[in-house]
Amino acid sequence: MSHAQAVEEHPDATRRNEASRRAILTAAFDLVGEVGFTKLSIEAIAARAGVGKQTIYRWWPSKGVVLFDAFLVLSEDRASGDPALPDTGDLEADLKTVLRATVDELNDPRYEEPLRALNTEMVHNPELAATYAERLHEPMQELKRDRLRRAQQAGQLDADTDLDLAVEMLWGPLLNRWLQRTGPLTAEYADRVVETALRGLRPRA
Amino acid sequence: MSHAQAVEEHPDATRRNEASRRAILTAAFDLVGEVGFTKLSIEAIAARAGVGKQTIYRWWPSKGVVLFDAFLVLSEDRASGDPALPDTGDLEADLKTVLRATVDELNDPRYEEPLRALNTEMVHNPELAATYAERLHEPMQELKRDRLRRAQQAGQLDADTDLDLAVEMLWGPLLNRWLQRTGPLTAEYADRVVETALRGLRPRA
Repeated sequence: MSHAQAVEEHPDATRRNEASRRAILTAAFDLVGEVGFTKLSIEAIAARAGVGKQTIYRWWPSKGVVLFDAFLVLSEDRASGDPALPDTGDLEADLKTVLRATVDELNDPRYEEPLRALNTEMVHNPELAATYAERLHEPMQELKRDRLRRAQQAGQLDADTDLDLAVEMLWGPLLNRWLQRTGPLTAEYADRVVETALRGLRPRA
Repeated sequence: MSHAQAVEEHPDATRRNEASRRAILTAAFDLVGEVGFTKLSIEAIAARAGVGKQTIYRWWPSKGVVLFDAFLVLSEDRASGDPALPDTGDLEADLKTVLRATVDELNDPRYEEPLRALNTEMVHNPELAATYAERLHEPMQELKRDRLRRAQQAGQLDADTDLDLAVEMLWGPLLNRWLQRTGPLTAEYADRVVETALRGLRPRA
């Protein structure tokens, strides 16, 4: 991340920078849920975080990038610092664990509004969509593909399956139901999606 | 539809009303693509359609409902007046026909902006989402479930399959890719989604 280069070598300065960084990310995350993306400003983030505007601009080029880093860091916290998908060897069980966690996140009021704000803004803002793709979507997509690739190598998924398609068959129905509010998002629903998608993705007899 | 009750019995008046109704729906559809949902007004629709504001309020309670009727009517035009899903007996071929048509619609610049405007506004506007559910989503969902129910009765889908889940396994990945712009929407992609989803939805051996 670009801010790493700005961190000084002195341990106290590093700690101070890390504290400022977390305060900024938390402020950005909370504010976008309160006022939406359009009204979110670097000034307001700085005021809430108790830092100067220049501190933010030194580390991030735009409010969109601050926000994506905020999601990334808060997701890592939730996953105890390890963003990789679980791999117990049991693909179905692992995917149910992950999709149930996604359901919990999407149903968590703290996540819901910021995520809706970003998702809808991206639809009309190609620049923000490109930043999202680079900062958040691609790293997450790569983790998902990695887990599915190992399953494919173990013969648990059809050898011809396109891994991007597989990811979308698993996560697409859930995200779509969430965005369009067309039904309740429950652990049971996550399980059914995993079971149905995997039946379609397994090696053909 | 509520406006039907307002249509007078005289043939000339009926024709005039029908012409006004189509002008209003076309104006609403074009305008939302140009200015977005927030800035769309009944005044602007009336001006573009060449009718009085009261004509619109007589037939529709809000701009959201005008818009949903516009989508419904324009989709019916596209489908030559019959909104039912094709049923040749070959489920896979029929679904590919329908999803390829959806891809064409989502890639059509005339549809793209209005659809994005509505989809994102609904995310933050529960009242509009409820109107959408009643006016557009549920009627379409019912047509999709009908087609899948006939396939289920013919033994082409697993008897235990929940039909709402089946609809989401087929349409969810495509809508999600479109909204998030995470990949190209092509006829080939539509075909792969249908093939993969159906493998997961067919009767279990």
